[in-house]
Amino acid sequence: WPRTRSLNAPSPIQQFGPCGRIMKNSAMVMQVQDQDPAFQRLTWYKTPLTVLVIKKVRDVAVVIPFVHLIEWLINNKRMVVYCEEAVKDDKSVTGNSKFDELQDKLMYFREGRDDLTDKIDFIICLGGDGTLLYASSLFQQSVPPVMAFHLGSLGFLTPFLFDNFEEKVTNVLEGNAALTLRSRLKCTLKRRQSTDATADTGHITSNGQVSQNGIGIHTSLTNGSNNRSNNSPMNFLVLNEVVVDRGPSPYLSNVDLFIDGKHVTVVQGDGLIVSTPTGSTAYAVAAGASMIHPSVPAIMITPICPHSLSFRPIVVPAGVELKIKISPDSRNTAWVSFDGRNRQELHHGDALSVTTSVYPVPSICAQDQISDWFDSLADCLQWNVRKRQKTFD
Amino acid sequence: WPRTRSLNAPSPIQQFGPCGRIMKNSAMVMQVQDQDPAFQRLTWYKTPLTVLVIKKVRDVAVVIPFVHLIEWLINNKRMVVYCEEAVKDDKSVTGNSKFDELQDKLMYFREGRDDLTDKIDFIICLGGDGTLLYASSLFQQSVPPVMAFHLGSLGFLTPFLFDNFEEKVTNVLEGNAALTLRSRLKCTLKRRQSTDATADTGHITSNGQVSQNGIGIHTSLTNGSNNRSNNSPMNFLVLNEVVVDRGPSPYLSNVDLFIDGKHVTVVQGDGLIVSTPTGSTAYAVAAGASMIHPSVPAIMITPICPHSLSFRPIVVPAGVELKIKISPDSRNTAWVSFDGRNRQELHHGDALSVTTSVYPVPSICAQDQISDWFDSLADCLQWNVRKRQKTFD
Amino acid sequence: WPRTRSLNAPSPIQQFGPCGRIMKNSAMVMQVQDQDPAFQRLTWYKTPLTVLVIKKVRDVAVVIPFVHLIEWLINNKRMVVYCEEAVKDDKSVTGNSKFDELQDKLMYFREGRDDLTDKIDFIICLGGDGTLLYASSLFQQSVPPVMAFHLGSLGFLTPFLFDNFEEKVTNVLEGNAALTLRSRLKCTLKRRQSTDATADTGHITSNGQVSQNGIGIHTSLTNGSNNRSNNSPMNFLVLNEVVVDRGPSPYLSNVDLFIDGKHVTVVQGDGLIVSTPTGSTAYAVAAGASMIHPSVPAIMITPICPHSLSFRPIVVPAGVELKIKISPDSRNTAWVSFDGRNRQELHHGDALSVTTSVYPVPSICAQDQISDWFDSLADCLQWNVRKRQKTFD
Amino acid sequence: WPRTRSLNAPSPIQQFGPCGRIMKNSAMVMQVQDQDPAFQRLTWYKTPLTVLVIKKVRDVAVVIPFVHLIEWLINNKRMVVYCEEAVKDDKSVTGNSKFDELQDKLMYFREGRDDLTDKIDFIICLGGDGTLLYASSLFQQSVPPVMAFHLGSLGFLTPFLFDNFEEKVTNVLEGNAALTLRSRLKCTLKRRQSTDATADTGHITSNGQVSQNGIGIHTSLTNGSNNRSNNSPMNFLVLNEVVVDRGPSPYLSNVDLFIDGKHVTVVQGDGLIVSTPTGSTAYAVAAGASMIHPSVPAIMITPICPHSLSFRPIVVPAGVELKIKISPDSRNTAWVSFDGRNRQELHHGDALSVTTSVYPVPSICAQDQISDWFDSLADCLQWNVRKRQKTFD
Repeated sequence: WPRTRSLNAPSPIQQFGPCGRIMKNSAMVMQVQDQDPAFQRLTWYKTPLTVLVIKKVRDVAVVIPFVHLIEWLINNKRMVVYCEEAVKDDKSVTGNSKFDELQDKLMYFREGRDDLTDKIDFIICLGGDGTLLYASSLFQQSVPPVMAFHLGSLGFLTPFLFDNFEEKVTNVLEGNAALTLRSRLKCTLKRRQSTDATADTGHITSNGQVSQNGIGIHTSLTNGSNNRSNNSPMNFLVLNEVVVDRGPSPYLSNVDLFIDGKHVTVVQGDGLIVSTPTGSTAYAVAAGASMIHPSVPAIMITPICPHSLSFRPIVVPAGVELKIKISPDSRNTAWVSFDGRNRQELHHGDALSVTTSVYPVPSICAQDQISDWFDSLADCLQWNVRKRQKTFD
Repeated sequence: WPRTRSLNAPSPIQQFGPCGRIMKNSAMVMQVQDQDPAFQRLTWYKTPLTVLVIKKVRDVAVVIPFVHLIEWLINNKRMVVYCEEAVKDDKSVTGNSKFDELQDKLMYFREGRDDLTDKIDFIICLGGDGTLLYASSLFQQSVPPVMAFHLGSLGFLTPFLFDNFEEKVTNVLEGNAALTLRSRLKCTLKRRQSTDATADTGHITSNGQVSQNGIGIHTSLTNGSNNRSNNSPMNFLVLNEVVVDRGPSPYLSNVDLFIDGKHVTVVQGDGLIVSTPTGSTAYAVAAGASMIHPSVPAIMITPICPHSLSFRPIVVPAGVELKIKISPDSRNTAWVSFDGRNRQELHHGDALSVTTSVYPVPSICAQDQISDWFDSLADCLQWNVRKRQKTFD
Repeated sequence: WPRTRSLNAPSPIQQFGPCGRIMKNSAMVMQVQDQDPAFQRLTWYKTPLTVLVIKKVRDVAVVIPFVHLIEWLINNKRMVVYCEEAVKDDKSVTGNSKFDELQDKLMYFREGRDDLTDKIDFIICLGGDGTLLYASSLFQQSVPPVMAFHLGSLGFLTPFLFDNFEEKVTNVLEGNAALTLRSRLKCTLKRRQSTDATADTGHITSNGQVSQNGIGIHTSLTNGSNNRSNNSPMNFLVLNEVVVDRGPSPYLSNVDLFIDGKHVTVVQGDGLIVSTPTGSTAYAVAAGASMIHPSVPAIMITPICPHSLSFRPIVVPAGVELKIKISPDSRNTAWVSFDGRNRQELHHGDALSVTTSVYPVPSICAQDQISDWFDSLADCLQWNVRKRQKTFD
Repeated sequence: WPRTRSLNAPSPIQQFGPCGRIMKNSAMVMQVQDQDPAFQRLTWYKTPLTVLVIKKVRDVAVVIPFVHLIEWLINNKRMVVYCEEAVKDDKSVTGNSKFDELQDKLMYFREGRDDLTDKIDFIICLGGDGTLLYASSLFQQSVPPVMAFHLGSLGFLTPFLFDNFEEKVTNVLEGNAALTLRSRLKCTLKRRQSTDATADTGHITSNGQVSQNGIGIHTSLTNGSNNRSNNSPMNFLVLNEVVVDRGPSPYLSNVDLFIDGKHVTVVQGDGLIVSTPTGSTAYAVAAGASMIHPSVPAIMITPICPHSLSFRPIVVPAGVELKIKISPDSRNTAWVSFDGRNRQELHHGDALSVTTSVYPVPSICAQDQISDWFDSLADCLQWNVRKRQKTFD
């Protein structure tokens, strides 16, 4: 496995679902080696036929746009539209008369049950950044191109305003789109080999954290069987970050951090965030990190409330492999979660490996990589927004 | 000029002086496109014959090691050794009897007068990080491989301990060395076209800042004539950072920042640091930046004491082009300096462009890229160094 | 010039120009006069007879010093020594033969059962900062003077080295001691009036958090009955901080913060720390706060991983009253803990009030207020500890 | 329960257990009693007759309000109005026809020439925060009550909106006003005793920094003769901060910091800010400090771009005395400035002492101490201003 010795990110697989490709153009040929992200544009290998529409849940404001969108995709674009089956339980949707008419023409999938691999050509998200995180979680390997709309309030991951959506979607379907390849982190959780088969089985906590067996169900579709008894490693792809924290314990956890096999530091504090550049503007920024443009091939490591005053966040090359373990002399265990999901305990002897995945999320830009990012910094984080200085007296 | 539209760093020129090359190996061939920094190792195209030795100035402790080194290089390795002519004025050196014997065998150069391009195969630095910054400033284009020794106190740029130097230098001369390609920033200062030829000529300030005409002398070797009257742009390559600050003015300057032609923000505060990853651990870290490993292809933008609470540092892809100008409505000018040198005023209408250079500094690792960096974080910045937590009572 | 030895600000001259004065009113007259903290020294009203000795639990290294200390207090000083009854269950102690002999001469108390008010003249802590937090929790009103020893590793709250303890304790018992009055925060948790008596009763969580009924037991001694059914407010005195956090919820909580009745901000993020100056060097400093000397009469408000880049910590006068409530439109509840103890859920409609208590912890200085604090900053936090800059080359 | 309206901490109960007391001594008796800042209200000893009006310079927008104000004060209130003589050189003012009529009824003073002590009953500022800093500099001892208006853009020091000024000023003149006593720092600069009378005399730098002799003129009115030859210490009262920085030198200065005679740390970096709580929201906040309410009796110490990652700002009691000196082994000198004025070099052997002055600035609140401060945090610093979180999808 040569990747772990690399400091560059591995070259991303450039196929996105059955139809999406990155366009080859003359500029890239002239470029010596690197693929220039600024030239990254979407191209379609064949005409996209299937589209997955993901809408924000529990938000009444999104219902009308959602119904408009699927109606237009079915009737005008003659596309096959997939939705989550859970939509049928959403009363704000099912109460809509137009939706009733469309209902039979929709294809449904059940999360954690139905495999979408190779079935989806194109994804449209409607709502907040969470829709894109959810889309990312559905595709643990190649992700089809994603076009994400917000409804009034710009998000980091949802650059398109819904107004005049027909023209914008048509444009993208015709191949006119700049792409940001958002790198993801491949997280592998390998449990300590248990000698006692009955010990330490999964459990449901009163706080709604997912039990270990429950995770096995979810990930079995893509990652094979993950239950603890056979000790296979569990894999998770994250778009924002993987978080290791002290959980409900009032005490600090001591976590050992290794990079490419070298023990680089011990984390003492509330926890540790390992994030993609995309995730640098999510939880990491709240913990004090600098913001990294999503096209920088890097991994950000940010401590949460560290006890050391000098534990500043660091940025390492995308190609390194991190390993995280509970320190042998730590009194406490820790908890780990992946893009805020699949929260579970990390025990002594367990090992969490993190490196950049070859499967990025191809996210379609509203304008271009630079403008989209700085607009979202200003709108979402009020970055450097202030009163202009008046002349001094 | 297609580079300004690129988000990737331009591919570095992989020739370092007349002899230095990066070794081609089978791993790189298998690699699809990217050159993997972890496989970067030094190779010599032909046997290095000339070596430039740069020693820390005004430090008596460095004299004995310096004389030992050049004696060994001349007598044992039969190399041609270059030194600064200023060494002959250094009484702590000239008082050394061994140096007296060697003196006639040395080659001398005068900074700002003699062109070293294509004359030097190899560089050895002796002392602190400043020696490497100085070496960088001497080579405004291709830089020969640099091996940098510290004397007791590890630096970010000086990973080798001097003990047993003979074996270490021999090893490198035989081609056994890992390399870090430290990207540099190409800074281009274009003065506003002056309509009045007599106005605003260069001047010497009482604070030792370089006058504009003085800069012309220095940079004329590599950059052609830079005096203001003919308005040619001046070029500077920096290894750490270019700093724009308010200078002696008590008032904030308003500085406009553009990225790839887009106006992204106004800087109000003491100033702005644009740094390489190498420079992220220098001035930028003191201004609050996260630390970036030198192999991440990125540019760091860090405000100095910004008036806005939300002006967090940001990291952008190495290939973007920044432009910095005084805001038209700013009452004040600003000052700019390049790796702490060539300090000069930035006037209304002047434009400073910054982008990643194709000429990195090939810096030889003592161990490897990851170990060298984390060791220097711990030693130089006490990064996350603290008492281990005792068990709680 | 006596002012230089004072820690209080000089009283401002209260005449402003020829006409302006500050209005005298009755409230001011009732205010008793403040004391200069630098002159604060301990005096004994009558000779102290009873001493409470608190030792760090689960630390074998503390056993021998503990036994030495109580032996000396009983046999040489003829004092009545109180210990926790739990000591009798600590095998590392009971296995000690000298302790066996002393055992019958000790007085025991049970936490949460026996009221120590007016029974203890003097407290000696042995171990880490936790011993002093525990001592503080035992005295919900007036606290006897506390002398705290560390065993090798200096703490913020444990300034005395144990070596030569006999001389040091004798000195203090003779009244030679500088005092730091460490302010505490009085936290009052008032539950929303429940209309349904059966709803929302206390519960034990699997994570060891204290149930609400359990708290009732603990606080009933000093605060009256606190169980939810009768809705009496619960009181807690904290020496470090009260923390409101999102608990196990992956979502941000929205918490409203009021100061003296004015709604000043909404906290969005992982939580909020309200700390004393003493607590500013505990959890607050990890969350980014500045450090405040314990003699500054102030309350520190520090957000934990706030989503707003501009949510910097603030310091308000010690006399304000804070009120914290879950925002009516928040989807989530929050959790509150007091010096890391008594963790419990904060529901919609509950109100947490925080203000400075009239019962500080009188903590005996090893040297003086300034020296003790800066020594602990350097030792515990490595504050501004670094390599001295070498001369530049 | 009167405590909730108090900004002071309640006086601690000074009995600690049955025996412990704080020793009463003579120093404490001399201490006059502190007042609760929340009850601080203005009263007039006799009816104010003279008013100093300070207007922002070089701002055309302020001219009309300024003329309205002085017209109303002279004609309606029959007050004696003082202005700076420089107003007569301000063409935007002298061009105003109404001002022409009033001109002869005004009293003028010349900064640095005329002593205003005991001549002014009341001060009105018109414009930005700089007007209040200027007013503070005019009164090196007792300061008359200050009422400060902004014109549209709220400042930290200018809480009143100018609309309907007649009613607001009348209210204050009638004694209806809450006061914030803003502490100032008394800075004493004592030059090293020069053995060579000709060495190191004052000089004018090309950057407009004030020469030492120039300062002598300014401060001679209040502080006696300050010229270097007789080596008398110079005194400056600052409302915001005293700043020690490296000036134009590219090298770090090493500055020794002493508190109450104890050497507490060495400052390496761009400099050091010693600020009042009022100044915590000025330069200090830009350098990373927490914000302190102006009624907290404290001094804030904030490093500027420190080289140590762990050099966090600290807050010490208002009554300590700081001393700042260039470290004996520092290669460089430093520069010092006082509220941005009187900038001058600090040489080896010079000593700068800083402590809280007994002469605060009595600043009149628009509402009350808490509301005014939080309003200015939000308006001036956008403190925690952000989009409210939307419900999550």
